[in-house]
Amino acid sequence: MTTATAKSRARRDLPATASPWTARRASAAGRALKRDAVILAAARAFRERGYHKTSLDDLAASLKVTKPTLYLYVPNKEAILFECFRAGLAQIQATLDDCESARGPARERLFAFIRGYAAAIVGDFGWCMLRAEDQHLGAAMSRRIKLLKAGIDRRMRALIDAGVADGSIRECDTRMTAFALAGALNWMGHWYRDDATLKPDEIADRFIDVFNRGLRGRD
Amino acid sequence: MTTATAKSRARRDLPATASPWTARRASAAGRALKRDAVILAAARAFRERGYHKTSLDDLAASLKVTKPTLYLYVPNKEAILFECFRAGLAQIQATLDDCESARGPARERLFAFIRGYAAAIVGDFGWCMLRAEDQHLGAAMSRRIKLLKAGIDRRMRALIDAGVADGSIRECDTRMTAFALAGALNWMGHWYRDDATLKPDEIADRFIDVFNRGLRGRD
Repeated sequence: MTTATAKSRARRDLPATASPWTARRASAAGRALKRDAVILAAARAFRERGYHKTSLDDLAASLKVTKPTLYLYVPNKEAILFECFRAGLAQIQATLDDCESARGPARERLFAFIRGYAAAIVGDFGWCMLRAEDQHLGAAMSRRIKLLKAGIDRRMRALIDAGVADGSIRECDTRMTAFALAGALNWMGHWYRDDATLKPDEIADRFIDVFNRGLRGRD
Repeated sequence: MTTATAKSRARRDLPATASPWTARRASAAGRALKRDAVILAAARAFRERGYHKTSLDDLAASLKVTKPTLYLYVPNKEAILFECFRAGLAQIQATLDDCESARGPARERLFAFIRGYAAAIVGDFGWCMLRAEDQHLGAAMSRRIKLLKAGIDRRMRALIDAGVADGSIRECDTRMTAFALAGALNWMGHWYRDDATLKPDEIADRFIDVFNRGLRGRD
């Protein structure tokens, strides 16, 4: 999604000069935008009906195109799911980029990451990102998804390590802490749709409170 | 599983009197034991190969019986998955029973529950318990599973509420705290098999440390 958005933004920002390339560039950007629309519609359909219960025919109908038209943009349903997964992950990665490059104690940057992560989970691609691995994908795609997830996990752990190093996070098992945090956040994908009384930012604030201060009352 | 185990234990504990009922009781207990063996073998096969990739033929072969023999104990694969789910849940429920009836501050009882829950997740039925809902079950069975899970969630939340009431847990959003804890624990189902460097008790201890004291270092 980011590439297409970036491309279309770049196109809007360019002065309108006549160029033999313009038509071709417009069509390339237009193609990317249409492809993005396919991915977004698929993500919403998968979340609504489930991956296996959504056919490419349904998807084509929802976009008011024919199935052969879909094939101009995506090779098959598995590839669409992967693109949905990647779009969700791109949001998380963008949040990580921000948190890694920001100033301030790593604990605060970790908490900013928690807010971004919660927003991504309730976003359009959250369901696909969390549930893609459960959809009996081929071994190659499962492996790619696992690898990309491991990358997020590594960066999250590095942020916690940075907090221990700068003293803003106390000494702890950073691997288990990352797993606990990721679990708390990912679990939102299981309950948020049925119980959306809080906004993602409010949920993130509650989680941050628990993880920051702990539960200990009087001893 | 518990019923059969209780029955067979009761049978062992009974004095060996001749009775016209003995043969019938032995056969009923024997039947329950065989049924439990089917459920356990299925749970292991589902975890190993996945629910959809395990056929009843595979299962029968692993037990060295014929498929028609399996049907003496279970009506279909979906029902087996449900029994696996229920067996995992029974472990959690037993832990909850213990923690609810124990003495001492509710925070300590909550932490004992975390230990029991972690053990159940890495146990034979943990995978089925966590992943059953992802297996595209019929609406009726999905609903039953959701209801049973909601019961666990309610009891877990009540334990946290009790901690706030007795002062051992500080004031917090108990619903979000329960979701954060459940998420951290359930997420084990996703990473534990690939990364079993810690025993479930050690993982539980790390989680307890994080949830008890929080992450806050120097301000």
